Amino acid sequence: MIAQAYKEMLGAKSVIREISEWSTARGAEIGYDNVFDYSLGNPSVPCPASFTAACRDLLEHTDPVTLHGYTPTLTLPEVRAAVAESLNRRFGMDYTAAHIFMTSGAAGALAHALRCVGVPGQNVVTFAPFFPEYKPYAEGAGLALRVAPPRTADFQPDLDALDALVDENTAAVLINSPNNPSGVAYSAETLARLAQKLAAASQVYGHHIFLISDEPYREIAFGSPVPYPAQFYDDTLTCYSFSKSLSVPGERIGYLAANPRCEDADLIVPMCGQISRGTGHNCPSGLFQRAVARCLDDTSDLSVYKTNMELIYAELKRLGFTVQKPDGTFYIFPQALEADANAFCRKAMAYDLALVPGDTFGCPGYFRMAYCIETEKVRRSFAALERFVREEYGVQIHEK
Amino acid sequence: MIAQAYKEMLGAKSVIREISEWSTARGAEIGYDNVFDYSLGNPSVPCPASFTAACRDLLEHTDPVTLHGYTPTLTLPEVRAAVAESLNRRFGMDYTAAHIFMTSGAAGALAHALRCVGVPGQNVVTFAPFFPEYKPYAEGAGLALRVAPPRTADFQPDLDALDALVDENTAAVLINSPNNPSGVAYSAETLARLAQKLAAASQVYGHHIFLISDEPYREIAFGSPVPYPAQFYDDTLTCYSFSKSLSVPGERIGYLAANPRCEDADLIVPMCGQISRGTGHNCPSGLFQRAVARCLDDTSDLSVYKTNMELIYAELKRLGFTVQKPDGTFYIFPQALEADANAFCRKAMAYDLALVPGDTFGCPGYFRMAYCIETEKVRRSFAALERFVREEYGVQIHEK
Repeated sequence: MIAQAYKEMLGAKSVIREISEWSTARGAEIGYDNVFDYSLGNPSVPCPASFTAACRDLLEHTDPVTLHGYTPTLTLPEVRAAVAESLNRRFGMDYTAAHIFMTSGAAGALAHALRCVGVPGQNVVTFAPFFPEYKPYAEGAGLALRVAPPRTADFQPDLDALDALVDENTAAVLINSPNNPSGVAYSAETLARLAQKLAAASQVYGHHIFLISDEPYREIAFGSPVPYPAQFYDDTLTCYSFSKSLSVPGERIGYLAANPRCEDADLIVPMCGQISRGTGHNCPSGLFQRAVARCLDDTSDLSVYKTNMELIYAELKRLGFTVQKPDGTFYIFPQALEADANAFCRKAMAYDLALVPGDTFGCPGYFRMAYCIETEKVRRSFAALERFVREEYGVQIHEK
Repeated sequence: MIAQAYKEMLGAKSVIREISEWSTARGAEIGYDNVFDYSLGNPSVPCPASFTAACRDLLEHTDPVTLHGYTPTLTLPEVRAAVAESLNRRFGMDYTAAHIFMTSGAAGALAHALRCVGVPGQNVVTFAPFFPEYKPYAEGAGLALRVAPPRTADFQPDLDALDALVDENTAAVLINSPNNPSGVAYSAETLARLAQKLAAASQVYGHHIFLISDEPYREIAFGSPVPYPAQFYDDTLTCYSFSKSLSVPGERIGYLAANPRCEDADLIVPMCGQISRGTGHNCPSGLFQRAVARCLDDTSDLSVYKTNMELIYAELKRLGFTVQKPDGTFYIFPQALEADANAFCRKAMAYDLALVPGDTFGCPGYFRMAYCIETEKVRRSFAALERFVREEYGVQIHEK
């Protein structure tokens, strides 16, 4: 008999995907070039040439039995060592291969991290706005997701809300910086204070409360480097994906890095090997483990995201929006012009603008624009955006 | 606090892996060429040239943003359609793309299949001898694994044992044909009778009891084609991996195929999409989805496995072993020369023979040889094997 729980989930469609599907359908009518599709966070720039070269070289010059053979349960030691070395060099950490576990992207890393430190019935706390997949990720591990309300003044996490949410059943706090959807990087000050609070709570409740840091957007930073959370708190599991930095989301390659000073640091990776057996994960691709190890210091040309951000931020300000300037990612998260962001985004569709209401990120009244699209299209979208806010909301526009 | 359950699993090492590690260590002492390592089921022949060519062609001629981009939640429609077409042509089925879900190998397929049809607290029944990973796979889905005892006369599943094991909490029966470790293919007669029994039990207990058919060795068949279980029973989920047929186990690519006549056939694949969210699976590699779709009618040169099997089978018979001739796979499963197969395999180590005791497959008193190794080494191993059985068990050897 098919499982009722998953059957029932079929009703609940992702809002982001629904809007993306609307964009595709509308594109079929009027030409996709004329739909200003800010719905999906799918990288729009190609992978670096070094990644393609690495794949081709591996296919040409490695014995195929080795290249495509099973990788060890704990993933390839030389790849894990290379990741550790790169993180140490960049962030002043002291990882060894023993602390790195290669995964199927950040989703795979999070699936392992949550099971490493949480047991069914416990809870994990995150801060709005948050990536909506955190809910199925947490629930898939048997954990309840608790969400601290957004601090819309600056989109730093509301640490004052933490005390009411953390209790004896809290396994971990889950953060995402730079943040999807706000684009804001959690500041060093924020992270230091978060670490203090987690250390205190761990003391109070008599067990280590872990920090799970989801960092797929780490390399898309628009100014000063994004603070590295594991520097601030020993019990940190860092979850990374090469999806955005190398523009390879379909190849499902990332890693989990356990802070060498976390509880039972040397057991985390062996535990991941056990967790994989139950979830059917069993290592990411051997080819792509090897390929990313050769590109650890490379990224796609990510400059388009900053160009787009600067343009959109300036235009949103000109149109009178309240909006926080992103520190990174390819998202921006302005306040809608009416309290109901769903209504706002629905009305925008009439102007062929695909915007995603903030409700799905736990932050009603705001909306997300994913600007991983061509700059030329960003520019063209401004006329539609201006017409939308003028006609629907009577906004008085300052001259350009 | 790190999760105790996984921490405790760290003690329980895989017997197969322990013996494999012994082989590696022993190889470091005397040269790996001199260790007759029959421990691991790792393909020893390269992937077909068509697979490498497909990968290289895709890397050269496909837009990298498309090639490496996210594939849809339910995996690539054109790949799913190609798999359906190939299965229909070969096995007279009537799959469409809607019934195929691409997965991270058979492990990924099984993880989805078990969650599709079972809910925590239920049980799944399998037949000894069985692949030991079935236990963590089932338990990872919250299901208890019940094991029917082996029928050592011919290693067909003991269907008479089924009645005592199936009850109102049985979600599925899990089979593996051709079988790891016995090498035996379940016969058409067996499958027809199994289908009758499952239909009757479904009637009795008022819910569909599914058949989950794990078929990674389907293409390694030594004689007549291996019967395709889904032909015999409507409520069948077929789990396949290209690991063995294309010699690409490290790339983690396979599929789940839902019989179009199974319960809620059109919901199985959408449910898999939901299940993935909770387990961190999120589609196999986009490159490899596309590559296998171009190689559906190809295999590696698998003839070495038959060559090895014929040699080993004849030698085992000559040495007086009781052994069933394999129909496929790259395993053979003879009876040990003493009741304690662990002791038998331990003694074999003194002769540099790495054999795996059957206890780990739920079949004490037998041992597995994985003959995915060079034929030359198979031949060389016979002197050691003969010396072992003569010196340890006083076996009188017939002349060659």
